[in-house]
Amino acid sequence: MDKRVIDIAEDIKEMKIRGAAKIGRTVAEALKIEAENFSGNDPKEFVKDIKKTARYLISTRPTAVSLENALRYVLVELGKAYKNGENVKTLKIIVSKASDDFCENSNLALERIAEIGSKRIMDGDVIFTHCNSSMALGIIKKAHRDGKKIKVFADETRPRLQGLLTAKELLDEGIDVTLIVDSAARIFIREADHVIIGADAVTANGAVVNKVGTATLASIAHEARVKVIVAAETYKFNPQTYCGELIEIE
Amino acid sequence: MDKRVIDIAEDIKEMKIRGAAKIGRTVAEALKIEAENFSGNDPKEFVKDIKKTARYLISTRPTAVSLENALRYVLVELGKAYKNGENVKTLKIIVSKASDDFCENSNLALERIAEIGSKRIMDGDVIFTHCNSSMALGIIKKAHRDGKKIKVFADETRPRLQGLLTAKELLDEGIDVTLIVDSAARIFIREADHVIIGADAVTANGAVVNKVGTATLASIAHEARVKVIVAAETYKFNPQTYCGELIEIE
Amino acid sequence: MDKRVIDIAEDIKEMKIRGAAKIGRTVAEALKIEAENFSGNDPKEFVKDIKKTARYLISTRPTAVSLENALRYVLVELGKAYKNGENVKTLKIIVSKASDDFCENSNLALERIAEIGSKRIMDGDVIFTHCNSSMALGIIKKAHRDGKKIKVFADETRPRLQGLLTAKELLDEGIDVTLIVDSAARIFIREADHVIIGADAVTANGAVVNKVGTATLASIAHEARVKVIVAAETYKFNPQTYCGELIEIE
Amino acid sequence: MDKRVIDIAEDIKEMKIRGAAKIGRTVAEALKIEAENFSGNDPKEFVKDIKKTARYLISTRPTAVSLENALRYVLVELGKAYKNGENVKTLKIIVSKASDDFCENSNLALERIAEIGSKRIMDGDVIFTHCNSSMALGIIKKAHRDGKKIKVFADETRPRLQGLLTAKELLDEGIDVTLIVDSAARIFIREADHVIIGADAVTANGAVVNKVGTATLASIAHEARVKVIVAAETYKFNPQTYCGELIEIE
Amino acid sequence: MDKRVIDIAEDIKEMKIRGAAKIGRTVAEALKIEAENFSGNDPKEFVKDIKKTARYLISTRPTAVSLENALRYVLVELGKAYKNGENVKTLKIIVSKASDDFCENSNLALERIAEIGSKRIMDGDVIFTHCNSSMALGIIKKAHRDGKKIKVFADETRPRLQGLLTAKELLDEGIDVTLIVDSAARIFIREADHVIIGADAVTANGAVVNKVGTATLASIAHEARVKVIVAAETYKFNPQTYCGELIEIE
Amino acid sequence: MDKRVIDIAEDIKEMKIRGAAKIGRTVAEALKIEAENFSGNDPKEFVKDIKKTARYLISTRPTAVSLENALRYVLVELGKAYKNGENVKTLKIIVSKASDDFCENSNLALERIAEIGSKRIMDGDVIFTHCNSSMALGIIKKAHRDGKKIKVFADETRPRLQGLLTAKELLDEGIDVTLIVDSAARIFIREADHVIIGADAVTANGAVVNKVGTATLASIAHEARVKVIVAAETYKFNPQTYCGELIEIE
Repeated sequence: MDKRVIDIAEDIKEMKIRGAAKIGRTVAEALKIEAENFSGNDPKEFVKDIKKTARYLISTRPTAVSLENALRYVLVELGKAYKNGENVKTLKIIVSKASDDFCENSNLALERIAEIGSKRIMDGDVIFTHCNSSMALGIIKKAHRDGKKIKVFADETRPRLQGLLTAKELLDEGIDVTLIVDSAARIFIREADHVIIGADAVTANGAVVNKVGTATLASIAHEARVKVIVAAETYKFNPQTYCGELIEIE
Repeated sequence: MDKRVIDIAEDIKEMKIRGAAKIGRTVAEALKIEAENFSGNDPKEFVKDIKKTARYLISTRPTAVSLENALRYVLVELGKAYKNGENVKTLKIIVSKASDDFCENSNLALERIAEIGSKRIMDGDVIFTHCNSSMALGIIKKAHRDGKKIKVFADETRPRLQGLLTAKELLDEGIDVTLIVDSAARIFIREADHVIIGADAVTANGAVVNKVGTATLASIAHEARVKVIVAAETYKFNPQTYCGELIEIE
Repeated sequence: MDKRVIDIAEDIKEMKIRGAAKIGRTVAEALKIEAENFSGNDPKEFVKDIKKTARYLISTRPTAVSLENALRYVLVELGKAYKNGENVKTLKIIVSKASDDFCENSNLALERIAEIGSKRIMDGDVIFTHCNSSMALGIIKKAHRDGKKIKVFADETRPRLQGLLTAKELLDEGIDVTLIVDSAARIFIREADHVIIGADAVTANGAVVNKVGTATLASIAHEARVKVIVAAETYKFNPQTYCGELIEIE
Repeated sequence: MDKRVIDIAEDIKEMKIRGAAKIGRTVAEALKIEAENFSGNDPKEFVKDIKKTARYLISTRPTAVSLENALRYVLVELGKAYKNGENVKTLKIIVSKASDDFCENSNLALERIAEIGSKRIMDGDVIFTHCNSSMALGIIKKAHRDGKKIKVFADETRPRLQGLLTAKELLDEGIDVTLIVDSAARIFIREADHVIIGADAVTANGAVVNKVGTATLASIAHEARVKVIVAAETYKFNPQTYCGELIEIE
Repeated sequence: MDKRVIDIAEDIKEMKIRGAAKIGRTVAEALKIEAENFSGNDPKEFVKDIKKTARYLISTRPTAVSLENALRYVLVELGKAYKNGENVKTLKIIVSKASDDFCENSNLALERIAEIGSKRIMDGDVIFTHCNSSMALGIIKKAHRDGKKIKVFADETRPRLQGLLTAKELLDEGIDVTLIVDSAARIFIREADHVIIGADAVTANGAVVNKVGTATLASIAHEARVKVIVAAETYKFNPQTYCGELIEIE
Repeated sequence: MDKRVIDIAEDIKEMKIRGAAKIGRTVAEALKIEAENFSGNDPKEFVKDIKKTARYLISTRPTAVSLENALRYVLVELGKAYKNGENVKTLKIIVSKASDDFCENSNLALERIAEIGSKRIMDGDVIFTHCNSSMALGIIKKAHRDGKKIKVFADETRPRLQGLLTAKELLDEGIDVTLIVDSAARIFIREADHVIIGADAVTANGAVVNKVGTATLASIAHEARVKVIVAAETYKFNPQTYCGELIEIE
């Protein structure tokens, strides 16, 4: 296996590479690296090597659904081409292209989600967010950049306090943000027009898996008749949940 | 005014003396000290001096309902005796006795509440608590000392983390306690048989005023059909709420 | 029976005299008129005449609880004095005094309810009201006069459109009021901090009887977690409901 | 542009042509008129002219989703034929046919919805309706014509009182109908077996946009466990809501 | 102890005497028998004997609250008279009188509850009942005898099928009654105007203790917005619950 | 018609053959028998005979959706082949194959559902079930066989007491099962982690039709925040509900 692939795997394992989207793009690139450096001519061996690399990458974070979906995206294209009897040279191009496509789609997703989601935000709206989701923040920043006057409540998100990152990130944009303790949700929720959060994974029955505190916040929002918007890329979907597989929470 | 009364007032102001019950007993004692050291013979002057002392003590923490109720308890007795035309010597005895009675009742209340409340706890029950209420903990400890096997979930109670004190206090008693972040309430509430909390104040319409996070927890408990037990002494009641007065939250 | 009593009865029957408080005060005065013009000396005859007058007045609007309570207030005092063996002269004074007391209390009630209720209203609050209740408007006006900036939503209250009177009355005070159709309640309720209404009657189990639309509004407010304040004098209480008697809605 | 197209546009703008279905069919016909009177031979010019006409028609009522969907229906067929290289003569036939198809489908929809919806209504059922929806009334009339004995509550639907039209329309059919004020919903809903209403638009997340009062009624029905049936043709669906576009309420 | 008292105790223990009201009256009578047959002259001995008898009677069914309340009723009167220094002859009369009063009140309670409760039932109402409560049936029969046309749904009340007794009892009165399986409650509850049930005990916080299935039925009724009427005599109240004592369910 | 087909029809009519899956497979086999014994050579006659047989079989239990779906499965394949102009010999093979496929799929469904459903069950879970559903029991048994320690509450399912069969079936597997009366659901539901039931039919709007008591149990589970899992094969779906057809409950 290529040395750079092993480095990537180590960085993911040691949490140096973090964030669902980042991890997905990085492993897609790892497959591309491995493919481009494959030296043989036997398509069968090529497929075998790429699959082995994929399994190795999965082993670094078996519960990260974006990692698995990124690899699946590339492997599906490879599988189709292999079945069509393509040679190694073509297969390399296929893997490269699929890897690039995944990365481009991932970057586009943030932009598209920000655009669609921000249409829901009206001038003067008050928004609640939890944790530190790039998708949720994308929506909030887009609304702000479009000139809408908004106010954000970010909860601390104990125990890792990702809410502090969120507050800082929004302050840097010049957005009016108030950091609150998690348990103060029921006091401030009545002022909110939307709760906007990201997702770690989405299951076959539509359930959203996300950082601790999300369920409490959603329940409080529901009681207060405030709609909860979950912003997630399609590769957050966990296809194994179709078969009743439960998701292990990190 | 007696020097010791002024010291007590300072200590309350500077939060050196804390906890509703403690504050109540201390100001009752302060009135006793002032009374015993009054030097004149004019009942009118005596009453005037005691009332002045009471107003001064109230000014240290105007929102602490136990402080006001403790003073009221003593002043009511004094008022009745004064109307009956008692002399200063008798009035001093009346103030002393009322002060002692308040303190004794306050101590008894903890014991009685622990006894009554603990009857609700069955062997094997799981209990949720919030903040660091001596009344709530009194119930939990009594159940434990009666040989009931119980398990407690204490939330951190951000921002001041009184939950850590609670966890330590229960651990010292040998009670099985788990400290959780506030926002994890909805995950663990399903295992709970009771939520047991204290109160800062109780209003005329039965509403309970308590530390931030209480409303969120109560809502989550209600959704999960877990009963919430509020343990509070009678002097937590705020009589001004009868007239629509709102309670300022500290 | 005195001619003026008969005139009063006619005016109530023909709805020339309207409003629970007004009706109550008027029939109390009617008893006073009848008493003062009684010409005999036999206490038994006097009581008989006053009771007959009361029954006659009740017959004009048998479902108006304030009417019945006003008469009961006077008759109870008369009954006690008669039992004590007082002569007609004294009984006349008793009836006069009871009648005056009822009227004074009724006027005081509005003032006191306005004072207590307005303490619940904070600067900047948004208030919802239904129908045209002098008690509810008393609270709103008091808050306004105390310098609190408030905004009121008044619904039309079909079919009699009492909401128009409410809107006019508040506009005349310089209060920011918006008249909405009844069915728009669920759109605007989210902006509301309080729903403040009056009551036609209050029953033994705490139920409130009021104009059509009150139940719909209360349900919508409950869903939106907006507290409903019912402002009512004690003589709105229907004591017969203790015995399971149902209230006929006008 | 054909003079008749301009007349149609004016009639829609001035509300002379009303009702979602009617508007949809009329603009489909307008495109047909424009197509049939096109004089050139250049397919490109033809398409350009039809599109310009469509844009002009949309400008009359930009928020009427049936108008836009009717035009889209015709333009999609035109687009496909143009791509296949058809000449102007064929394109004219395509536009004519698509216009006729839309109108026929629209008329059929009422019939089909009446048939399907009325299967839900049992003999003796009590039905609640709001506003004046031809789809909802279609269902009710069909049930009546099938010999089912039904009773209808129609609310006034303030402020425009469309409920009066509904009541009249049902009375003319010999259906037992009671007109109630909007706010009386919570009193009569317990007698209801179904709430049947139409829709102005349906969004991508399944939300129904309809006349003011619909949300209040739906909430009251939900509390009373009465199912709400929304009767709407497919061209009430607003496809732009897929992209987060909010619907402007007329 | 008198032989008849022992027989009564045995009959209660062996469930030959059943029903809360019946048990209460029988033990009151047992105290009267014991009192009347006491042979000594020492008031202290008399009180001792009556208290011993009461303790013995309680031991037969320690969880029957009516039994304990009946005895308490008699013992309270006895205690007051003993403190006043009455002789044995007078104490016997006191016990006899208190016993008779309890029995008379118990019989009157059924009549009064039937009268008050039946005022809630309107002509044409549909009533749901559970188990076989003489108080609930008293209300239903009174309404029927007053000429109101009513329809009753009685559930089986598994496992002991007391619902069959209820159905038979109502049929014998000529009341239209339908026996349903317990789990069909949610189907038929929508037709109901009232749920009327009895109570085994009532606690200090207002909770009602009753046969298995009551909680399920109450929940289903609550969801369907059908009011639940609990018909119970005052001696169903368990005063020990004031101190947190839990009630053991038979 | 073949004698064996008539025997099968009689057995279904007389409830000798019971259970949705069993009935479906048996009628599929009946069509196969009829097909194999058809003696002519005219494809049209063949199709006519098979359709007549299907109609006859439907008439035995017109409300059994699995019966209709099984026949539809075979008839759809036959229809396609007939349209393709196949001869009788081939049509016979087609019918045989379709019949075998249906039976095989039906048996596989149980296995697959057990596998997928049991993934939801964790070691130590408590499960509630109602009636006697082979799909629900398949899931429970699979979890048990996989070594998960589970506890089951089975309600009696009055009036036919299918819960006794369920309890016996689980006991035979060595599963810890407790039989409860239906109305005790609200007491034991709090201990439950899942409610797992089967379905008689599933409608176009996702509603589940099942034995009496299912709605009561689902409501009680919903209140207690316990998820309800419905285990059903695809042939439980009733396609006629697409058109508003209501399902007659057996």
